[in-house]
Amino acid sequence: MNTGTAAPGSGISRRRLLVGGAGLAGAGAAGALAVASLAGGDAAAQATGGGVVPFHGVHQAGVVTRQDRLYFASFDVITDDPGELHRLLDDWTVAAAQMTAGLEAGEYGAVGGPYLAPPEDTGEALGLPAANLTITVGVGRSLFVDGDGRDRFGLAARLPSALIDLPHFPADDLDPARSGGDLCVQACADDPQVAFHAVRNLARIGFGVVSLRWSQLGFGRTSSTSTSQATPRNLFGFKDGTANIKAEEVEELDTHVWVQPGDDPGAEWLAGGSYLVARRINMHIETWDRTSLAEQETIVGRTKGSGAPLSGGDEFTEPDFAVTGRDDQTLIAERSHVRLAHPTVNGGARMLRRGYNFTDGSDGLGRLDAGLFFIAFVRDPRIQYVPMQTNLSRHDVMMEYLVHTGSALFAALPGVPDGGSFADALFD
Amino acid sequence: MNTGTAAPGSGISRRRLLVGGAGLAGAGAAGALAVASLAGGDAAAQATGGGVVPFHGVHQAGVVTRQDRLYFASFDVITDDPGELHRLLDDWTVAAAQMTAGLEAGEYGAVGGPYLAPPEDTGEALGLPAANLTITVGVGRSLFVDGDGRDRFGLAARLPSALIDLPHFPADDLDPARSGGDLCVQACADDPQVAFHAVRNLARIGFGVVSLRWSQLGFGRTSSTSTSQATPRNLFGFKDGTANIKAEEVEELDTHVWVQPGDDPGAEWLAGGSYLVARRINMHIETWDRTSLAEQETIVGRTKGSGAPLSGGDEFTEPDFAVTGRDDQTLIAERSHVRLAHPTVNGGARMLRRGYNFTDGSDGLGRLDAGLFFIAFVRDPRIQYVPMQTNLSRHDVMMEYLVHTGSALFAALPGVPDGGSFADALFD
Repeated sequence: MNTGTAAPGSGISRRRLLVGGAGLAGAGAAGALAVASLAGGDAAAQATGGGVVPFHGVHQAGVVTRQDRLYFASFDVITDDPGELHRLLDDWTVAAAQMTAGLEAGEYGAVGGPYLAPPEDTGEALGLPAANLTITVGVGRSLFVDGDGRDRFGLAARLPSALIDLPHFPADDLDPARSGGDLCVQACADDPQVAFHAVRNLARIGFGVVSLRWSQLGFGRTSSTSTSQATPRNLFGFKDGTANIKAEEVEELDTHVWVQPGDDPGAEWLAGGSYLVARRINMHIETWDRTSLAEQETIVGRTKGSGAPLSGGDEFTEPDFAVTGRDDQTLIAERSHVRLAHPTVNGGARMLRRGYNFTDGSDGLGRLDAGLFFIAFVRDPRIQYVPMQTNLSRHDVMMEYLVHTGSALFAALPGVPDGGSFADALFD
Repeated sequence: MNTGTAAPGSGISRRRLLVGGAGLAGAGAAGALAVASLAGGDAAAQATGGGVVPFHGVHQAGVVTRQDRLYFASFDVITDDPGELHRLLDDWTVAAAQMTAGLEAGEYGAVGGPYLAPPEDTGEALGLPAANLTITVGVGRSLFVDGDGRDRFGLAARLPSALIDLPHFPADDLDPARSGGDLCVQACADDPQVAFHAVRNLARIGFGVVSLRWSQLGFGRTSSTSTSQATPRNLFGFKDGTANIKAEEVEELDTHVWVQPGDDPGAEWLAGGSYLVARRINMHIETWDRTSLAEQETIVGRTKGSGAPLSGGDEFTEPDFAVTGRDDQTLIAERSHVRLAHPTVNGGARMLRRGYNFTDGSDGLGRLDAGLFFIAFVRDPRIQYVPMQTNLSRHDVMMEYLVHTGSALFAALPGVPDGGSFADALFD
């Protein structure tokens, strides 16, 4: 499906993506995107303190950036008209480019428009800096085919083969109202009000075309994606993401995160994109808090203080799963989290994680409704996420303290070049 | 009820509050707390950038301070034993003093304790600065007398006369699971992870004595309490709290915020404290966003851009409710929010507000569950809050875009002097 024309009023020229799709195949000798150095570009820009992460690029921003606050939203598309969907993505592109630059949404913004019309921007971010806002858009399997396998928008032939329905994992207790969705928007910023404002304005722009399905505020970042950041802690109190892929590891990003040309001949349009796995993981923190330090460290396989593996060294020392102690037991337990999640027991699979701690109040039973909103970006979820999560769900002792209550998989679109649109990869 | 002895294991000396209770009556010629200059002390300390707000003082911190992030929790007391309640408040005092200083809770903290025991601190704030954390504790009417009027802990005779059951206001649609409570903890900080950590550790310390009733994360501050801060915006996109009482207005604080000696002969123990009104106000923001700028400004009575009253001037110009324009209509509408909330139509009543924008995801109908978690500190809610809210509920056109979904009133305890305890005022 290709509407072929610029959306009315979108105000963007629809200049074709120069690097993208099939045209990429010859870009590098090994077929890899020869643009990896750009991958860390937004992180570098952020480090300059300018507060604006470039919106346009080969990859979407918001994957390797380091902001501490998240607002994530999943939408159902409620129109049957592919043209409306296309225009929505065009309009979202314009608004996202403006808001990530620290500008208001719309041509007139919050207060500059006609006095007798609703404002084009909702206004709560007026006066606030860009705060390193990134807006990352993904598409769900249900956008391509509905539950009966019907082609909803003429996109079925473009369904990426790795955009699967995630299997049911042991210990899943998923709430359908917190799972799935046709489109997702991940807004990350240094200021939560800026992230909220971004999602709200995209929802406002999409009125009548999309309906908010679920959303999640994340208050504290885990799994840093920068070597210049201290490793943050999750709500179990442990450092989380020590071995995460970092923005600086550009080759690893091509190997493990960015979809490469040729990965999926039926969906070359996704080259330069990624897959976004979202899992709302509730933690039984009251139970955890009554567990001994010894038990906690055994379950994790690292010390709680420094985060060093129990086999010794410091936080960044590679864990040694063979070294034994008393009674010839390995110092790192076989069912510890660090071992079961380690690439060496998962066929070398690594993920780029950018989870956020969350709390949604209490559960009515005197307990905090809190945990980790897990987000991972991977090149192929069938290889990198599903086997590892199957392994963890079955064997990880930590699962006694967790329940997965929400789940979604999206294909994160490739980057939008200057003058392009989120819709280009999908429709052109 | 006076347990009279230090709580076992609390580790604090119970030095008597030098300024407080009946001993205050002669402190100033007019009976005012002659300590008003201390009121802004924590704000001043915060401005130095040290990141630590002093915990001890004549008033609790967290009233005039300026942090942007909130985690608020309401607890039910589940013990019948006054001694357990007393010890809990002692233990909370020790933990609050430590955490607000940027230290871990407990004697040994997160990782320093016995290896085979649960850690004394949950650990997720390890490595984070104090982030200007304040912990403010209040007590609800239900702590003194239960629904049948029974004296629960021997405190009924000490019930402050202004600690009423708030009346039902028109347009209230209160969720009992988001209302009321025996104790409250307001944790404010520059970092939400630090605020969350504080509440979580107090809940952990209270295991078996208190049960979490409800809690609320606030992501963006409204109603600044400092003249050095730009006025923040609520989710209607308008500046909120332009006319708020500021930390620098020390005389106004004594007049409108701090309970004064002699205010309540039956509850002299509350002198130096305040009343904390908490209201969870959901905003129909999707409806608001489809309202014209003209209508929005008419409803508010101020411009959306600068926040100036519609009668002219700049943000801090006093509104002139008499000045008329075309057709002899007043420029500020009679039912505008700014007029109905103004001291001149509320018998001179002012409040110190410190609300926070919130979002708790979506409501299952495609709309954001978001709004304002309103907090106000007042010297007497019967005079300052109830008449004004009655007025607003009945006449404010803005009410068409609001629904109050949670409500609570607490007596915020007086400040805790060095070596004192939250329990002192209540029990001694």
